[in-house]
Amino acid sequence: MEAFVHQRIHDTLKAAKKPLLVCDARIDGDSLGSALAVADWLMKEGKSPRVFVVTPVPESYRFLPHLERTTSDQSVFADVQLDAIAFFDCSRQEFAAELLKPVPGRPAIINIDHHSTNPRYGDVNQVLTDAPATAEVVHRFFKENGIVPSKEAALCLLAGIYFDTTAFSNGATCERAFLSAAELVRCGGKPKDVIRALMYNRPMSALRAWGTALERLRELPGTGWVVTHVTLADLAAHGATDDDLQEFSTFLAMMIDAPTVAVLQEAPGMVKVSMRSHGSDVSAVARRFGGGGHVKAAGCRMSGVTLEEAEECLKTEICRM
Amino acid sequence: MEAFVHQRIHDTLKAAKKPLLVCDARIDGDSLGSALAVADWLMKEGKSPRVFVVTPVPESYRFLPHLERTTSDQSVFADVQLDAIAFFDCSRQEFAAELLKPVPGRPAIINIDHHSTNPRYGDVNQVLTDAPATAEVVHRFFKENGIVPSKEAALCLLAGIYFDTTAFSNGATCERAFLSAAELVRCGGKPKDVIRALMYNRPMSALRAWGTALERLRELPGTGWVVTHVTLADLAAHGATDDDLQEFSTFLAMMIDAPTVAVLQEAPGMVKVSMRSHGSDVSAVARRFGGGGHVKAAGCRMSGVTLEEAEECLKTEICRM
Repeated sequence: MEAFVHQRIHDTLKAAKKPLLVCDARIDGDSLGSALAVADWLMKEGKSPRVFVVTPVPESYRFLPHLERTTSDQSVFADVQLDAIAFFDCSRQEFAAELLKPVPGRPAIINIDHHSTNPRYGDVNQVLTDAPATAEVVHRFFKENGIVPSKEAALCLLAGIYFDTTAFSNGATCERAFLSAAELVRCGGKPKDVIRALMYNRPMSALRAWGTALERLRELPGTGWVVTHVTLADLAAHGATDDDLQEFSTFLAMMIDAPTVAVLQEAPGMVKVSMRSHGSDVSAVARRFGGGGHVKAAGCRMSGVTLEEAEECLKTEICRM
Repeated sequence: MEAFVHQRIHDTLKAAKKPLLVCDARIDGDSLGSALAVADWLMKEGKSPRVFVVTPVPESYRFLPHLERTTSDQSVFADVQLDAIAFFDCSRQEFAAELLKPVPGRPAIINIDHHSTNPRYGDVNQVLTDAPATAEVVHRFFKENGIVPSKEAALCLLAGIYFDTTAFSNGATCERAFLSAAELVRCGGKPKDVIRALMYNRPMSALRAWGTALERLRELPGTGWVVTHVTLADLAAHGATDDDLQEFSTFLAMMIDAPTVAVLQEAPGMVKVSMRSHGSDVSAVARRFGGGGHVKAAGCRMSGVTLEEAEECLKTEICRM
């Protein structure tokens, strides 16, 4: 079945005169790398694919090829000539449905993903939940159809695997991830290029703000959690932005000898809470405050409270569960 | 030649009645993992190998199997029955020579490594400089001799590869590293076990001290370097130790968007300087102060100076070069 679907996707895209490739709402290395690798192949087939990204590609992905094919202009969906639309790493049907509203004709909808929550909303669905990344699904698609990734495509797919396995350091790290990476390196993808772009990229101001958060690490009494906080004044003092803290809780969870961490960040009119765990379900805690996420990574926002109050609410809720 | 040497090492160890396996002076995941993987094989061959470690195995390696085979008792080298001594990841001949002094008989000396600086001091030398880790050399040794790694041996070798590639994030990350990791996972080695042990292991006190160092990041005027410092009072305030800062400069270099970093750490009567770069030769700077190291990772100690003076000396020296 997997092989049959790979072939069907191949035939559909190869027959398409005007294919559109779509990245997930939250652009990441896997979604973007997967779409660009397929764009690379289609370009070698003589086509001019567009790659739709909801927001412009972040600075840190500038090392990827074919970014000139990307667009954030939603009018691409209104093109009457569109005959194939492929979604990459887009697990939410609502996201796809919203984008597809203005589509005039009846293009083939292709859905390539690895999330178990993907409801298979496409005409053709290749959702392989044993894949460590959508990039690895695309790599299998290439192999099944005898497509040798160019070194540009290999770099894109390698970036996807690095991204989704957090550089081979999270639970998605499996034999397939290593095997795919080995083959992609053989095809000319350079780990160095991916690592440099995805890792050595934090400005001094961001790391200074991380420093403030690290200095304040403390146990949340009676919970076994380790918490810290960052104020708006901290960000201002370091010249750091909200974005600079985005990866901090993931980083903290990977470094510290503690099962669960929470980072409380002051924002205008609210406190944002980012939680990470190596076991217990933090999404259950997040949901109590109207948030959500995954078992091991979740978040929520508490409106109209101070940092102290937010921490107290969090503690009470954790103790109650 | 490589295959021939693999076979010779196999025959020598298999014929040995009393083999001794030796880890490098600075115990790390690669040296220890390599020796323990070979110990695992020898135990399955009915032997009772000892694994010599200069200092007791650090807490973070407690997840590795067969640690009961390790000893720091140098008298093992005086055993008249010793008939084979294998060194793992020990590139310095002086280290091996010193340990071999009390050896009474004439055991076969086996030297397994991947450092280009290894002077091939053994009777049999398998020094493969294209290997990302000594563990990958041992993996090839297993394959060449038809030895399927047990899941314990696979875990040991996987730990070695993770360690030497800094979790597939440094310049040693190559196709061989990924391919070997894939095969070791297939043999039952669990990335999760390695990651958890090598990564999620820093106490809160250590990370608080890292926080202080991060908060103080600054450019060293006229050099393009980013520097920071940590005082003895900082360590005391956070309840952190000298050891807690050991990996900090490596971490900093991997996170920051800067070509070269230096961490100045106050110690009794001196300032220790740890330097990391993505290109320029920091060992040249280290040598000016009587230190040493590699092109991208070096260090030195400046006696009888304050932190301010040490920073000034460093700046002057960098500007002069």
